[in-house]
Amino acid sequence: MQDIEKLQFLSEDQVRQIAQGGTPVFVYSRSRLAKSARQALAFKVLYGLTVRYAMKANPHPEIIKLFAGLGLGIDASSGFEADVAIKAGVNPQKIQLTGQELPANLADLLKVGVGFTACSLHQLEEYGKLARGKEVGVRINPGAGAGMNNRLTTGGLAASFGIWYEYINQIHTIAKKYKLIINHLHTHAGTDTSSEGWLNVAKRNLGFLSQFPDAVSTSLGGGFKIARMSYEKSADLQEISIPIAKLLKEFYEQTGRKIHLEIEPGKFLVTNAGTLVTRVIDSKDTGKNGYNFLVIDGGMTEIIRPAMFGAQHPLVVVPRNERKSNEVTEYAVAGHCCESSDVLTVVPGDPETLQPRKLERAEIGDYLCVEGAGAYCASWSTVGYNSFPAAREIIID
Amino acid sequence: MQDIEKLQFLSEDQVRQIAQGGTPVFVYSRSRLAKSARQALAFKVLYGLTVRYAMKANPHPEIIKLFAGLGLGIDASSGFEADVAIKAGVNPQKIQLTGQELPANLADLLKVGVGFTACSLHQLEEYGKLARGKEVGVRINPGAGAGMNNRLTTGGLAASFGIWYEYINQIHTIAKKYKLIINHLHTHAGTDTSSEGWLNVAKRNLGFLSQFPDAVSTSLGGGFKIARMSYEKSADLQEISIPIAKLLKEFYEQTGRKIHLEIEPGKFLVTNAGTLVTRVIDSKDTGKNGYNFLVIDGGMTEIIRPAMFGAQHPLVVVPRNERKSNEVTEYAVAGHCCESSDVLTVVPGDPETLQPRKLERAEIGDYLCVEGAGAYCASWSTVGYNSFPAAREIIID
Repeated sequence: MQDIEKLQFLSEDQVRQIAQGGTPVFVYSRSRLAKSARQALAFKVLYGLTVRYAMKANPHPEIIKLFAGLGLGIDASSGFEADVAIKAGVNPQKIQLTGQELPANLADLLKVGVGFTACSLHQLEEYGKLARGKEVGVRINPGAGAGMNNRLTTGGLAASFGIWYEYINQIHTIAKKYKLIINHLHTHAGTDTSSEGWLNVAKRNLGFLSQFPDAVSTSLGGGFKIARMSYEKSADLQEISIPIAKLLKEFYEQTGRKIHLEIEPGKFLVTNAGTLVTRVIDSKDTGKNGYNFLVIDGGMTEIIRPAMFGAQHPLVVVPRNERKSNEVTEYAVAGHCCESSDVLTVVPGDPETLQPRKLERAEIGDYLCVEGAGAYCASWSTVGYNSFPAAREIIID
Repeated sequence: MQDIEKLQFLSEDQVRQIAQGGTPVFVYSRSRLAKSARQALAFKVLYGLTVRYAMKANPHPEIIKLFAGLGLGIDASSGFEADVAIKAGVNPQKIQLTGQELPANLADLLKVGVGFTACSLHQLEEYGKLARGKEVGVRINPGAGAGMNNRLTTGGLAASFGIWYEYINQIHTIAKKYKLIINHLHTHAGTDTSSEGWLNVAKRNLGFLSQFPDAVSTSLGGGFKIARMSYEKSADLQEISIPIAKLLKEFYEQTGRKIHLEIEPGKFLVTNAGTLVTRVIDSKDTGKNGYNFLVIDGGMTEIIRPAMFGAQHPLVVVPRNERKSNEVTEYAVAGHCCESSDVLTVVPGDPETLQPRKLERAEIGDYLCVEGAGAYCASWSTVGYNSFPAAREIIID
């Protein structure tokens, strides 16, 4: 099943050249970012589409700017994220704030036009005090999510996101009290949902629309599966969009309401537009029954996903000089932290167990590229652990 | 088994007062830090003891300074850490560098007197080039560690730390080439080892001393189990020290060599000297078959250990006004990140599954203290995720 993975968008020469400026370094590809944005914008709908970039995946200002320029809106998870987006030049009216924590500066954000989705009855009440008579979105926990028995669900009994669907009456009570107009309904299908799973949850979620007569738009969130390894397959957004468009058409035929659709992809847009370039700083083994280790000058300081979830990322060796052979060796790859968790080659979904990979033979001083590092790597890193400084981030054209 | 946990060193009034300055905030207790340092210094030995603080657990300059003032040395895991310790005022000669990554400024660090332990044959070779004829330590992977089938081991086949014990001949070859004197032998028993486990590994590790005739000191690393929850029990350092002292005495009787002992505790020194004070920002539930959630204004941005390892930390509610009742409710506690992993109440060792806790009843605006947050919290946080700023850190007397 496991092939030798290839560089996704850099040439070996580019890796060598970029590494001259210092490693570890995140390299983002502008053309890859644009390509995935276009794929998301091609989501087929009948009554209007807004694609919001879930900027928590990677809040690099250049990435935010690029997406905004292509017509994407922003999904901000905190007031701080909204500030970052505004500072990056995004029109505040294109930002929708949907988060667990009510920002201290909510009044200021609303004043400049940031949209707000209440994720709890408390948030709705506080919003009502600030914005009596205004429009607002609500996030509903639809009572079911993808991967219900797993913490990676964003809906269902075990999820703290949104307002539990049985409390819709209380939403209306608060809305009435503050004369709020609930013009937007947010739900979220989960993470890494299959096309089918996505549709099933979407169906259930859209069912709540009838209880919000003023809603003119609905967001289904993100969570589109994205392939990193060569043996994986990404969600096909076109394929997902067709039955959802059909659902919205049926809803129109039954109710006369044309619902504008929003989606909020994060990792779908950036995952495969980012590479972490590291340098091999050591090579050692634990005897003939043991492992061949490569140690790199990055690791959980830049990418904690393998250590945390057993996430698989393509690892590609680039020799520091021109390639002379394609000899393959089985390697375990460790990061530079003094931390036994800092390992990049683990069993899928089981970070506790080492699983070496076949890689092209590497020597100390060669480079090792971690592909699929555009999402939840720089943004979710343990920067500063072992006092290592933050990795550089660059964008290439 | 589960009791309602209590505040460890703050009073409820102190929590309220400190929280006025903003939450989330890490509070470290100077007296608790000093107490644990004294416990470590009481490790019984016959031929001298050095206690080095494994500063990766918490590199706060005031903590480093305090420990240095009490006579502790520093275990630095990177050149960057050594720089931080020197900047905090530590005498460089009290710092031993034992890390996965050879610092770019190694020559400068050696010049001011930082000690060096080679963790690979490559590191030893590079050290030899810089410091021909000088003294050096080596770290050996003794071929067995605590929790061998688990990534939390720092010895054994699956550990990338140190030089595999079968390659001791190669160590001597390199040492001879550069006329290096191997005066220090480092091994490491693992993490959370029981007293018995610790002794067994120590016994095996000390066995390697006979192969290093110039070694005058040996480090057994850290990894002493520390209790956070009221039902847990910390390692008893006195109890651990006695049989180790006996081992070293036997070694002296057999060889005439008096070996100076080093230990490198990290979490043992700081874990229970730190509290993360957060504020309850939301309260919601998922119906009668679901969970009562408290949402706090901290989370994986400050403490990723529950989400990563299923680590258990005491959670203590402090009402924002004086306590009126001791009513108890079962709560699931979620952090402020838009991230389903951001949960603090999970099954021990199983971060995928929610496990609510009995806590004193809390309302929005009350405080929630996460105890046992002195080690691997601030230093191992995902600061910046969702663009949340870093938590404050303060030290109290």
